Amino acid sequence: MPERMVVVGGVAAGMSAASQARRMRDASALEIVAFERSSYVSYSACGEPYYVGGYVSRIDDLVARTPAEFAARDIAVHTRHEVLAIDTQRGEVTVRDLDAGREERVGYDTLVYATGATTFRPPIEGMDLAGVHEMRTLNDALAVRRLVEAGARRAVVVGGGYIGVEMAEAFHRSGIPTTIVTASSSLLEPQFDPDMGDLVLQAARNMGIEVHTGRQVETLHGEDGHVTGVGCAAEADADAGDGQREFVGDVVVVLGLGSRPVVELAQDSGIPLGESGAVWVDDRQRTRVDGVWAAGDCAEATHRLTGQPVNYHLGTIANKQGRVAGINIGGGDIRFPGVLGTAITRLCDLEVARTGLTEAEARTAGLDYVTDTFSTTTTSGYWPDAERMRMKVLAERGSGRLLGAQIVGGPGAGKRIDTVAMALWNEMRVDDVSMVDLSYAPPFSGVWDPVLLGAWRLKGTLTS
Amino acid sequence: MPERMVVVGGVAAGMSAASQARRMRDASALEIVAFERSSYVSYSACGEPYYVGGYVSRIDDLVARTPAEFAARDIAVHTRHEVLAIDTQRGEVTVRDLDAGREERVGYDTLVYATGATTFRPPIEGMDLAGVHEMRTLNDALAVRRLVEAGARRAVVVGGGYIGVEMAEAFHRSGIPTTIVTASSSLLEPQFDPDMGDLVLQAARNMGIEVHTGRQVETLHGEDGHVTGVGCAAEADADAGDGQREFVGDVVVVLGLGSRPVVELAQDSGIPLGESGAVWVDDRQRTRVDGVWAAGDCAEATHRLTGQPVNYHLGTIANKQGRVAGINIGGGDIRFPGVLGTAITRLCDLEVARTGLTEAEARTAGLDYVTDTFSTTTTSGYWPDAERMRMKVLAERGSGRLLGAQIVGGPGAGKRIDTVAMALWNEMRVDDVSMVDLSYAPPFSGVWDPVLLGAWRLKGTLTS
Repeated sequence: MPERMVVVGGVAAGMSAASQARRMRDASALEIVAFERSSYVSYSACGEPYYVGGYVSRIDDLVARTPAEFAARDIAVHTRHEVLAIDTQRGEVTVRDLDAGREERVGYDTLVYATGATTFRPPIEGMDLAGVHEMRTLNDALAVRRLVEAGARRAVVVGGGYIGVEMAEAFHRSGIPTTIVTASSSLLEPQFDPDMGDLVLQAARNMGIEVHTGRQVETLHGEDGHVTGVGCAAEADADAGDGQREFVGDVVVVLGLGSRPVVELAQDSGIPLGESGAVWVDDRQRTRVDGVWAAGDCAEATHRLTGQPVNYHLGTIANKQGRVAGINIGGGDIRFPGVLGTAITRLCDLEVARTGLTEAEARTAGLDYVTDTFSTTTTSGYWPDAERMRMKVLAERGSGRLLGAQIVGGPGAGKRIDTVAMALWNEMRVDDVSMVDLSYAPPFSGVWDPVLLGAWRLKGTLTS
Repeated sequence: MPERMVVVGGVAAGMSAASQARRMRDASALEIVAFERSSYVSYSACGEPYYVGGYVSRIDDLVARTPAEFAARDIAVHTRHEVLAIDTQRGEVTVRDLDAGREERVGYDTLVYATGATTFRPPIEGMDLAGVHEMRTLNDALAVRRLVEAGARRAVVVGGGYIGVEMAEAFHRSGIPTTIVTASSSLLEPQFDPDMGDLVLQAARNMGIEVHTGRQVETLHGEDGHVTGVGCAAEADADAGDGQREFVGDVVVVLGLGSRPVVELAQDSGIPLGESGAVWVDDRQRTRVDGVWAAGDCAEATHRLTGQPVNYHLGTIANKQGRVAGINIGGGDIRFPGVLGTAITRLCDLEVARTGLTEAEARTAGLDYVTDTFSTTTTSGYWPDAERMRMKVLAERGSGRLLGAQIVGGPGAGKRIDTVAMALWNEMRVDDVSMVDLSYAPPFSGVWDPVLLGAWRLKGTLTS
């Protein structure tokens, strides 16, 4: 009889684990069963704002593989099935078929805990009104797009993180007057330092997106069960002008306040969490419970620069951790080497990217650092279509180790963050980075690429 | 009395050296005099095709700093001055003022040999006809643009290297029927492997640029001293169709056959060359002669992957080597850490980039390698404006060390080569590269960035 691998959560990490385990071991040796609470598996959550914004026209385009495609590879996928309990002693999960309303117990030899993350929901009135959405499953994306197509007259995005900014673009592109309400003083905080976040804030306002900083949503007003208005107050300590503020109309509200790992099931089952609040895993993605593995947004990762446990919710990490879990379950031996928090997004034509540590993160880690921020272009300065690009870099005093970078700029600016990420990965010092043989031609950069320029500038600061 | 630093050749390497030396030591300690044979100093030779093509409208835009700007920083620049001889025993150069026709001797304490490279000129008739140009100094660029503006009816580019491809774009954009004649079987050979060069060749033809491969120019026909036609024959061993071929008309001919370092003056002066045929230098840019330094296209560099001396003619290397020479001359201590041969160019919308070793280079270096070539996109596959991108990667069998990459693709594809360059710089193995925390969002890449994908594929090949 084959062993059975049960996957709890069928999105990036869970289905990557399933696919890799299947590559390593066939169905005669390993049965694979995945349970997913929503109606879709193996989808690109990161693509949802672009579906709402109409860049991607079919929701199916966001699905990498359907249950039928998994079935063809001998991976049984059950959508609309919620795992309610894990009995790690008996090796058994209790699963509820959400449509049939039935519960059953399913034994496992190996379990992959890949429950993902859940959106923060502020503890205020009106959260259950129709028209209030988070942006997590494809059902969320479908529902919000339907509201857009039905002619919503104002969109309010609560929170100014990645999802908040991406949803603001989606609504803006759909021609809907859009407001972002954030308790922070800028956008994309704390993923970016406020000086860099301010550039995004200014760009948003220049595009005609309203942004209210230093404000928290206090109430959601409704009529006939539908949200019709948003009330928010200035933060006590923020210089945000007058107090109460209302946005009323035919509103759609999207929550972009960030997310937390789904760990309740783990806690109830005795699967220990780590310092970050996510499920503790070793570098092979094993939890502290025999036979139980974890991967993705619900699992911890080690930051390569600080050595600290962190919990970022990024598709890149989920896919890699899932792959590592699956290969190891399949009998391979592969380690997850940690993260840098590299991320990229955009607000229309403005590209925004980061890697490594922000100033706040460097301070929290107790590192003594220097920083430099400069303006440059994505091309030679004399190139007619030179796009402006602002770059911030950090290095450790003493060691001279590069610590992080943030980029805000026009088309072509953002992906350069990967060059910095590769340098951080290798713990390079700024004097080493400053001399790397990077590419140059006038349409692509100055002869001193921005990454080299940043390293040179930090080198100057460190030695002066 | 201050020491005197004499710079022979006032373009990228020479003027970088001058500028850095000046930063380190002021005029009371160090006099700096630079001699440049052409009419301009400190210009972007890489920008010339874009001036000819009309992207850059003013030739002055290609000049980073004028002689007057250098004078303001106490750097004396003499254009139209050719250094004829270097007496390394006496520490003296013989300089000819090309306009006045005068010669004089100038003593030096420190000499920077930065004579650059010169274009290969085939030993055929008609090379001195008006309308036949190389593309080196700004005077060349001015002359060719004048011919374009005067209504040249056909452009023939001899050679299919970087300059050849860039000049083909320039002429094509100017609306002039353009022909590239190359002895190679594809374009950008040998900088790229033929399979990747073929993609550029096909793209050129699809744009309406004629490309004749496997052919050498044999004769340049002229009338009244102006070139009116190009005769070329098929290479004996090339499957290039019929023999002799003629292009006749109101022609401008540009040489893009590659270049060689200008070393005659060094040889005449007893400054030793290295194995690559360029001036030997140590990692501080010192030649084997006391007080004489060399930098840029005329100087050697060490390839970081093979340890072999190489001589590439790239502005990136020239600027770095010049900076290293200048800082060391000024009393600092900095090493030039070697090169990877990273380069980028484009043919209209097609971006082309490389770093590390091609297959041919890996073979020459005696390395046992595996290779993988794959198609991907610059964005998520479902992104509506996904640009196609072809990537070739090489790794060493046994060690698993990444050896090189080549990219040919649409807008956004090329600059990703820098991520690979940074990995090569750190001598990373493909299994390490495959897990690096690179950035992802649907408009920028798949969740597995092409660089990660390439590493995964090579890893599979190496272990299968």
